[in-house]
Amino acid sequence: MAESPSMWFMEFVTPSVIQQFAVKDLVYSGQSQYQNIEVMDTVSYGRCLVLDGKIQSCEADEFIYHEALVQPAMSIHPAPKRVFIAGGGEGATLREVLRHNTVEKVVMVDIDSEVSDICKRFLPDHHQGAFDDPRLELLHMDAKKYLADTNEKFDVAIIDLPEPIEGGPAYLLYTQNFYEMLKTKLSDDATFALQAGATVVGITEVYTAINNTLKAAFPVVFPYSADVPSFGGSWGFALASTTMDACKFSPEGIDRRIATRVKDSLRFYDGHAHQGLFFIPKHLREAIEKETKIITEDSPMFVWGI
Amino acid sequence: MAESPSMWFMEFVTPSVIQQFAVKDLVYSGQSQYQNIEVMDTVSYGRCLVLDGKIQSCEADEFIYHEALVQPAMSIHPAPKRVFIAGGGEGATLREVLRHNTVEKVVMVDIDSEVSDICKRFLPDHHQGAFDDPRLELLHMDAKKYLADTNEKFDVAIIDLPEPIEGGPAYLLYTQNFYEMLKTKLSDDATFALQAGATVVGITEVYTAINNTLKAAFPVVFPYSADVPSFGGSWGFALASTTMDACKFSPEGIDRRIATRVKDSLRFYDGHAHQGLFFIPKHLREAIEKETKIITEDSPMFVWGI
Amino acid sequence: MAESPSMWFMEFVTPSVIQQFAVKDLVYSGQSQYQNIEVMDTVSYGRCLVLDGKIQSCEADEFIYHEALVQPAMSIHPAPKRVFIAGGGEGATLREVLRHNTVEKVVMVDIDSEVSDICKRFLPDHHQGAFDDPRLELLHMDAKKYLADTNEKFDVAIIDLPEPIEGGPAYLLYTQNFYEMLKTKLSDDATFALQAGATVVGITEVYTAINNTLKAAFPVVFPYSADVPSFGGSWGFALASTTMDACKFSPEGIDRRIATRVKDSLRFYDGHAHQGLFFIPKHLREAIEKETKIITEDSPMFVWGI
Amino acid sequence: MAESPSMWFMEFVTPSVIQQFAVKDLVYSGQSQYQNIEVMDTVSYGRCLVLDGKIQSCEADEFIYHEALVQPAMSIHPAPKRVFIAGGGEGATLREVLRHNTVEKVVMVDIDSEVSDICKRFLPDHHQGAFDDPRLELLHMDAKKYLADTNEKFDVAIIDLPEPIEGGPAYLLYTQNFYEMLKTKLSDDATFALQAGATVVGITEVYTAINNTLKAAFPVVFPYSADVPSFGGSWGFALASTTMDACKFSPEGIDRRIATRVKDSLRFYDGHAHQGLFFIPKHLREAIEKETKIITEDSPMFVWGI
Repeated sequence: MAESPSMWFMEFVTPSVIQQFAVKDLVYSGQSQYQNIEVMDTVSYGRCLVLDGKIQSCEADEFIYHEALVQPAMSIHPAPKRVFIAGGGEGATLREVLRHNTVEKVVMVDIDSEVSDICKRFLPDHHQGAFDDPRLELLHMDAKKYLADTNEKFDVAIIDLPEPIEGGPAYLLYTQNFYEMLKTKLSDDATFALQAGATVVGITEVYTAINNTLKAAFPVVFPYSADVPSFGGSWGFALASTTMDACKFSPEGIDRRIATRVKDSLRFYDGHAHQGLFFIPKHLREAIEKETKIITEDSPMFVWGI
Repeated sequence: MAESPSMWFMEFVTPSVIQQFAVKDLVYSGQSQYQNIEVMDTVSYGRCLVLDGKIQSCEADEFIYHEALVQPAMSIHPAPKRVFIAGGGEGATLREVLRHNTVEKVVMVDIDSEVSDICKRFLPDHHQGAFDDPRLELLHMDAKKYLADTNEKFDVAIIDLPEPIEGGPAYLLYTQNFYEMLKTKLSDDATFALQAGATVVGITEVYTAINNTLKAAFPVVFPYSADVPSFGGSWGFALASTTMDACKFSPEGIDRRIATRVKDSLRFYDGHAHQGLFFIPKHLREAIEKETKIITEDSPMFVWGI
Repeated sequence: MAESPSMWFMEFVTPSVIQQFAVKDLVYSGQSQYQNIEVMDTVSYGRCLVLDGKIQSCEADEFIYHEALVQPAMSIHPAPKRVFIAGGGEGATLREVLRHNTVEKVVMVDIDSEVSDICKRFLPDHHQGAFDDPRLELLHMDAKKYLADTNEKFDVAIIDLPEPIEGGPAYLLYTQNFYEMLKTKLSDDATFALQAGATVVGITEVYTAINNTLKAAFPVVFPYSADVPSFGGSWGFALASTTMDACKFSPEGIDRRIATRVKDSLRFYDGHAHQGLFFIPKHLREAIEKETKIITEDSPMFVWGI
Repeated sequence: MAESPSMWFMEFVTPSVIQQFAVKDLVYSGQSQYQNIEVMDTVSYGRCLVLDGKIQSCEADEFIYHEALVQPAMSIHPAPKRVFIAGGGEGATLREVLRHNTVEKVVMVDIDSEVSDICKRFLPDHHQGAFDDPRLELLHMDAKKYLADTNEKFDVAIIDLPEPIEGGPAYLLYTQNFYEMLKTKLSDDATFALQAGATVVGITEVYTAINNTLKAAFPVVFPYSADVPSFGGSWGFALASTTMDACKFSPEGIDRRIATRVKDSLRFYDGHAHQGLFFIPKHLREAIEKETKIITEDSPMFVWGI
């Protein structure tokens, strides 16, 4: 009779929900200047990156998260050449951006060089060599400071950061202040996408507040959602644009752009799946409509953290 | 400092994935002729029904599961009068069916009368009085036997059963044999919906096999998926019809039908959300296309069970 | 194949050790003025009292804890008439005291009347009617204040309190200040016993500090230890006396006293078991000898608490 | 606020009791011909050996287990020269035996050479170089077969095997048949010790049956018990002898023998601790007295296994 596995990753998804994954091997465990970093091989989800005890992405379903985060923003842009990434240490967001043959330059800013180093070494199936692409400029500094000081203008910006946690490095990048500043660094028909917290019933307050805050800064905001099992369920994203033209995309147009622009086959995303992402349920749409909170530096928002 | 809750529901979602919910109260625990029955109040998901250690539905997100299961099949049917439900002991599937003012009769067959009794008593927010509706005929017997012997014809059939488990009561209702027999009890423009297992990456084999088996019995089959957090993530369904006309529904048509037919407001489902249900990701569509297995009584399929 | 239980009590014994007990029923759950109170029926340990998420005592092995706590102090006293109990809400410490037919009066002071009420109602196998004994005077107030104000003198004192936790009600009763004051309320040949924290390797600092603090207040101190499985392993106690005569007890003498004085049969304790309690391992004796900390109100000690 | 550890070892101590230890590193994980082997670094117990998901011994408290298993049998023997060990792959039982300067030869038979190899490599603090001692003859074969075929006679035999599990390699060595055969390979004043399962309330049936079975084979049997926290609590042992003289040892005699014979300092065991081991509680003594089962090859006994 098969015995139960003996090693488990345990995560408090909330103070009253735990998820546990059986672990085959703990590949790396260490503490950087900013956070605790672990890389583990799980039975169900393959190799996973864990920061401060929270699953960041797993081999088995990271394609859902990273395609959902990157491909809509890239695909509805007519010709994305210059792309900005904040965070994204695994290199998988970068990988998705670089698939588009229109891209000439990617500036990726991740504050924690150790995360990048660990991922380069231990997560080859995540980055698939993306760190070696000559179009990449990789910087290890505060993304907010970089943007404030740069003269660059970007066609697409992707914010791939851990959720806002009190005392954590990322919470200032989930504010109206940041979004306003970012907008000044975007080109006229730019798109901007970010992960925006869980869309699980009962814990959608980060999702709705982020979407509401974006609306205060951008003329067009599309909330969306995809199921990322290793995150504990349904995950939220938001797509914003500096131009109303962003509303005009069609599923067929997306499939055409993927066919002409994108290297290798996508696994999750196409014009059909695009609609599944953006046609979110009634209760989520209503919760966003009812939301009044605007996140600012003076009035920040934090997810639950143990 | 807030302490960790002390009582937890623990479920092996698979042998290598556990989910735990903090529990405030164990409302009922007992053993029927067919299964272990528990009703518990959880912190995150409210009151939950658990059969044989598996979450069946929780107060906080059962509206997603039950609207997703019932409303598409009901809404795309032009005028559903006679409805068949197999399983559905909580009464919430029944509740969703009875919302439609076209319905004249519902035959609900659940083999375990104790589950119905417990749910009537302890899950008022699930059934919301549906068991008292005069249009209901509630039978406690084998659903397969009932159908085989009946002379009734149904406009809509909903199969709301636990997943097929070896030795469990439900597995014979997930076979081509059953679907073929059921079809003979359906009217000419009937619809048929069922829950079809997890659509979580790596454990979609039940979902794809059920969809493929349905294709062997029905001219039109639509696989779909919704995120039900308390089930541990993305959950699969399938909608079949006896007529090709079922393909002609539009989001606007759904909203119109809801407006004229449906009592009280739906929380999850409308024409917009309908599209989110059916525009499933590329990898799921490909997995269904590649599937060759047809489930029969001689070649049944079982999900993992501890 | 037998399925895994679905309801579990989970306790962080330390931040890096968890114990979980399968639960059949949550009998009571509530919040008093002082603490969270739960009564649950576990599969392995029967009915358990849980305060602030920590197991206090379980039906299956409480006899070990309560006989070990009470019987040595009672049995080595030549004729215990007046007994003081601090805490002990379950009534099982009281039960053990009242077994001795020499006892004329027991003053039991538990700050939380709700704990007593809940235990009277839900833990009949713990107290076995002890609360109805006419020799009992039960007070709900601060045990320290009671002692400071009383003119009584006691032959035996038993301190049956939760471990010292920051902000908890009990920590001041684990100090030299309290022991010195208590000593003034004891008769000339009195004994004094208390639970003194885990004696598990690596977390014995409370046990050794309590024993060392007692030595600063009493002429004779005997550290001892018993295995209480539901506490997560080996548990420490200490026995002190106001007289050097306390050292003269023999196993045979204990058996004789039990035979003449004690109502009903003891399950854990006799002269033989007495020696097992007090002949503690070399590493524990050495740890106590090396200990220099004396716990005072100005320099209190706390166990780990979540 | 300190976050909860993310990696945990989880063991079903029984089907209704789980213990979890936070894990810092999974040092080794593999499958031998006989069993699954894991070596992990835990926060509370240091480096642990795990076979088939069950803790075998941990750095922090293995000294309790191994001294308790070995030192009584060695110390009460007047001059142990030839010692037999069955199992004991970690090398810590061997280490304890070799401390005695009377020992001339140790034959250690462990069926699984991979366990020995892994332990040599990864558990240096367990074996402390014992495998290099020239007095050792290490064999990898069935211990029962070795004994049956050998012409050697031993002064002391130590059985350090996993608990008897159905289908496991060890259960035949927990039978009267084996004990009878072993006795024929012992010298006239030999001692024999073995680990004998949990002595936790409610799960003592293996302990009492082993002790009762030993009584059917040896003239003198002493049951004893020590608390090994990482085993989940109180653990049972038994000491048998081929001669009634074994009853004559005194604590002072033990201390004298340790002083003259034993290399380096013991941590757990001395004459004082010896008494703590053997003066077991009344309920355990009564349970052994009441036990009637004798374990034989035809009527074997198994502990619970998942």
